[in-house]
Amino acid sequence: MDIHGGNIYKFQREGKREILDYSSNINPLGVPKSLEEGIKNNISLLERYPDVHYVELRESIGEYNHISSDNIIVGNGATEVLFLYMKALLPKRALIISPTFAEYERALKNIDCEIGYFKLDENIQNEKRNFYLDVEKLKKEAINYQLIVLCNPNNPTGSFVKKEILEELNEFLETNNIKLFVDECFLEFVEGWEEKTLNTLKSKNIFILRALTKYFALPGIRLGYGITYDNKIIEKINSIKEPWTVNAFADLSGKIILKDKEYIGKTDNWIKNERVRFVEELKKVDYIEVYETYTNFVLLKIKNMKAEEFQKRLLEKNILVRNCSNFKFLSNNFVRIAIKDTEKNNIFLKSIKNL
Amino acid sequence: MDIHGGNIYKFQREGKREILDYSSNINPLGVPKSLEEGIKNNISLLERYPDVHYVELRESIGEYNHISSDNIIVGNGATEVLFLYMKALLPKRALIISPTFAEYERALKNIDCEIGYFKLDENIQNEKRNFYLDVEKLKKEAINYQLIVLCNPNNPTGSFVKKEILEELNEFLETNNIKLFVDECFLEFVEGWEEKTLNTLKSKNIFILRALTKYFALPGIRLGYGITYDNKIIEKINSIKEPWTVNAFADLSGKIILKDKEYIGKTDNWIKNERVRFVEELKKVDYIEVYETYTNFVLLKIKNMKAEEFQKRLLEKNILVRNCSNFKFLSNNFVRIAIKDTEKNNIFLKSIKNL
Repeated sequence: MDIHGGNIYKFQREGKREILDYSSNINPLGVPKSLEEGIKNNISLLERYPDVHYVELRESIGEYNHISSDNIIVGNGATEVLFLYMKALLPKRALIISPTFAEYERALKNIDCEIGYFKLDENIQNEKRNFYLDVEKLKKEAINYQLIVLCNPNNPTGSFVKKEILEELNEFLETNNIKLFVDECFLEFVEGWEEKTLNTLKSKNIFILRALTKYFALPGIRLGYGITYDNKIIEKINSIKEPWTVNAFADLSGKIILKDKEYIGKTDNWIKNERVRFVEELKKVDYIEVYETYTNFVLLKIKNMKAEEFQKRLLEKNILVRNCSNFKFLSNNFVRIAIKDTEKNNIFLKSIKNL
Repeated sequence: MDIHGGNIYKFQREGKREILDYSSNINPLGVPKSLEEGIKNNISLLERYPDVHYVELRESIGEYNHISSDNIIVGNGATEVLFLYMKALLPKRALIISPTFAEYERALKNIDCEIGYFKLDENIQNEKRNFYLDVEKLKKEAINYQLIVLCNPNNPTGSFVKKEILEELNEFLETNNIKLFVDECFLEFVEGWEEKTLNTLKSKNIFILRALTKYFALPGIRLGYGITYDNKIIEKINSIKEPWTVNAFADLSGKIILKDKEYIGKTDNWIKNERVRFVEELKKVDYIEVYETYTNFVLLKIKNMKAEEFQKRLLEKNILVRNCSNFKFLSNNFVRIAIKDTEKNNIFLKSIKNL
């Protein structure tokens, strides 16, 4: 399981106690106060099984997304929903747009699916460096597959493909009987995301993955959900799903935090300002190449040393970054870092300047 | 999912608010205070992914059971562990000792396993009525299967098969290359359970299922575990397991409550005394037949009406019981009720006397 970032426990067990964890992309505002209060006042929820149908939870998620709760599947983190979708769809051949999050590959291998990898092109557009999706090229490859998997915004590159482009792509895919799976777990960090989510297309061909992990700083609570207009997939998922996988507090959290306008406002404000500032500061560091980001992390290419070495040296300063060498199509010079609050980001900046 | 008990949400949605839930078998002492404090003081745990290897949690469970943490698999409730074991073992033919909990069947159907059902014999031994296991008969049937599934104590009958009997059975099964899966989720309600658990046999042929759901009154937290001395099964499960399925508070709970001697002492004291008293009182009700129980629930046969009618009439008095008509080999006259505290049990007794 060391394919993942966030392996801070390993470092802690090895005796390093005070680590600034830049490998994990979590909202630095922390757990919403509304949820903290909610949990403290509802400990006795643990004495019951959660509602096996999660009716109220799905209604709350539906309201947040301006859609019906019938289009929502909840799960134990985005991970469970991802695995369930793959088990329900059972594609024989799937194409993963890469480099990207490793868990899609695991979920597809789990159902013995043959996997292809579509390479994002690294280049510079409008003076911004990133990995761009060549849609025309993708269409040509896509016809050999039954499912296309896209992470948007993409982890670890931070790149984002616009709705208009994906709408056209989806029309092509639907015509050719190819499904589109889009992981939008980092979407809420994109300005104006409510207009940019693919759920506004209401296409039966698309399955959207979301989580409360990143935006609401709750990786520990394990609550993810899927959105789809394909009733058959929902029925199939419900038939294979294990009961009660979302625990009582995860259930509660979804009913509370999605309505927490104050937290949402503060978060939007933080990411909007700090992202620009932090990226500009990072660009001033001469030995790194900074990639454009639409979300709450930044991909960096280290020009004069390997990612492993960079990670090691920063760890000596008690900062943990994500070495991206094991991402497909990324060389051993890439690391991914979180965007945190100004104070921590300044510590990070100072540390890499003195490396 | 209405095959399960605990469908109190359905009744609540239908407008009945104050229901005494005798369909759910939860320790009436409620959430341990130690955990309540632990959660309130550790809300920020939610800001991190849990340790994907759950090292400390498994160590705590190991200590509680006097075994090595290497023999432990943790999961999102007993359900996940059950499903994982079946997916890892992939038996072609399995025999479920019945009537019993419906989830084994679901987990086996999920892997397209052919299922047989071994019927427990209803009779009276030592003046006590229950469903008894005829081991010699079981051995004869068992040889046609690769896996035997036993719930012990058994849900919903409350019966319990002694370790000596199962030790001998397991030797026979092992010789014939047949695995034994034993669900001990209700074991801690059996007096002297530490001597009676099959984990003391340290047999590679056995997989034991446990949960914190019942004894520690935490169905909402979703924490279960498996115990096995078969390293290959552990490796296989780890290879197919989704990451982080145990959430931060479930992880925390396992580290706190298993050490809570006060709660454990109180619980043992309650069940020991109240079980005897409640069962004796139930026996005085002339229109029900009471089955011997080793755990925290009681199976009842309603002599003069169907379970459905009995359930309906009690619901009018705001008490919910588990109609057991859909358990294999049980007629439509059976209900299962929880053992709660003296006060609630007296309300229950009064209600059924006046039915």
